[in-house]
Amino acid sequence: MSLPQVVPDPSLPDAVTVYEVGPRDGLQNESAIVPLQVKADFVQQLVAAGLPVVETTSFVHPRWVPQLADAAELVASLAASGLPPGPAYPVLVPNERGLDRALEAGVRHVAIFASATETFARRNLNRGLDEQYAMFEPVVRRARDAGLEVRAYLSMCFGDPDEGPVGLAQVVGAGRRLLDLGAGQLSLGDTIGVGTPGHVTALLDAFGAAGVGVSRVALHLHDTYGQALANVLAGLRSGVTTFDASAGGLGGCPYARSATGNLATEDLVWMLDGLGVRTGIDLRRLVGTSTWMAGHLGRPSTARTVQALIRG
Amino acid sequence: MSLPQVVPDPSLPDAVTVYEVGPRDGLQNESAIVPLQVKADFVQQLVAAGLPVVETTSFVHPRWVPQLADAAELVASLAASGLPPGPAYPVLVPNERGLDRALEAGVRHVAIFASATETFARRNLNRGLDEQYAMFEPVVRRARDAGLEVRAYLSMCFGDPDEGPVGLAQVVGAGRRLLDLGAGQLSLGDTIGVGTPGHVTALLDAFGAAGVGVSRVALHLHDTYGQALANVLAGLRSGVTTFDASAGGLGGCPYARSATGNLATEDLVWMLDGLGVRTGIDLRRLVGTSTWMAGHLGRPSTARTVQALIRG
Repeated sequence: MSLPQVVPDPSLPDAVTVYEVGPRDGLQNESAIVPLQVKADFVQQLVAAGLPVVETTSFVHPRWVPQLADAAELVASLAASGLPPGPAYPVLVPNERGLDRALEAGVRHVAIFASATETFARRNLNRGLDEQYAMFEPVVRRARDAGLEVRAYLSMCFGDPDEGPVGLAQVVGAGRRLLDLGAGQLSLGDTIGVGTPGHVTALLDAFGAAGVGVSRVALHLHDTYGQALANVLAGLRSGVTTFDASAGGLGGCPYARSATGNLATEDLVWMLDGLGVRTGIDLRRLVGTSTWMAGHLGRPSTARTVQALIRG
Repeated sequence: MSLPQVVPDPSLPDAVTVYEVGPRDGLQNESAIVPLQVKADFVQQLVAAGLPVVETTSFVHPRWVPQLADAAELVASLAASGLPPGPAYPVLVPNERGLDRALEAGVRHVAIFASATETFARRNLNRGLDEQYAMFEPVVRRARDAGLEVRAYLSMCFGDPDEGPVGLAQVVGAGRRLLDLGAGQLSLGDTIGVGTPGHVTALLDAFGAAGVGVSRVALHLHDTYGQALANVLAGLRSGVTTFDASAGGLGGCPYARSATGNLATEDLVWMLDGLGVRTGIDLRRLVGTSTWMAGHLGRPSTARTVQALIRG
């Protein structure tokens, strides 16, 4: 199994953090329930492959995402297994009830999931834009009071399936409100994957002009139109150092109407390795993990790098 | 069907030429013979969608590529159908015999296919590196004497499946020899798709230092590891204005061991449209063409933009 030739680009950051979302954002799209032990093994293998952050689950109500009904048991199982203390294991908390459950489970790092558009806020949260901040305010405040780190996802930053184009000022306004609530990191999501590199640059510039530096921003890019890695490259050039990705491209089956098209961690790591940008991730082990997980899910990984490397 | 939001990047070229290789590089990988009329319709639809260059076929010996045994008939059929004169319709000619057939068919633009590595030259041409130049010398000379434009493909520029890494100096040396023979354009191929953006920049810089400006260079990038569009972006930043791509990602089935992983024209056009880089291509019509062709081939297009747009 070959690895990319390293040809560094000195204009890019020396190292970045890959924020792995497969166990949560990937598996939440799977209809067949994955056994608890497989989920726990998945997280452990990802950590062993060098992933520095693995979002493990979501404390969403089981009625909405039955796949993640075992969130508390998974967190307990991982704690009992003696996971290494270096990496972070954030969990998604959709609301105060989710935060209560997460605190009870003893997590140290949570993420909330907000929308940059009115339409998607109503569709996903059953609330308007202003109401979403009211809902998240006590979640962030109480999490911080408990000493937790808080990340805020901001979805639909590059376009909305119903509203179409989304203005830069609107996204910056929404992002600032989430940071003002007390979120430490803002993950800008191209939820439907329509963005292109100039758009990434323009949005990061707009955040910079509003006083939000790239050190507080992550990019969560989807490969629905094949644009994710080119958009990562634009983000790297702007100095972003945190990128979300999903091992094996989980959550991104290109043949399903529900495809979310998550950027595959392996494709991202191939590019970063080639660029000489350090991640601490062992690509071979990661491909092994995604191949193992694909076996459990009963279909091949959609990640191009996984497909290429397992072909030999 | 939505189209990308335009957010230009002023550091990039205003317009580029997309060099369509689907009818040749895509179809040559199809084992089931595609009827002549379908091939002719495919080329005509691509031209109608605004593709400015469509490589139509290869005058390779039918023993090696039975799919393209109808090269002369296809060229005659296209000429008889009154194709518009603006676009270019190059054909591949592997050797002098192929050139003879192409000249007889009345083509105005040919391409040769060379290797940057000894191993691949032997595997693909049954000749060493030096012998390949000797073979191509009369092809290029006679084509130019007949007033034809000549493009030279140079394969394995970013890595070779047997040799591994390929040095920049080796690639520049091979490319210069092809240009010295009289080729007007040099298409640098990442045949196995292993390259990353810093490598693209470094290779273009190396050509520049050797006196070969970007105006004579095209990039032929494969998406085997998902890197093609990020590499296009690096090429754009270096000023490259010709990019090869294959409608619908033909030739790039990710599930076949023989996958060549051609960059899909639609994914490329989505990015260029979003960046405000003019191509003259109507993405909607192109997606319609690729969907029609996928129907003839009996399987869905692998191009992410095609999949996303036909889902709606």
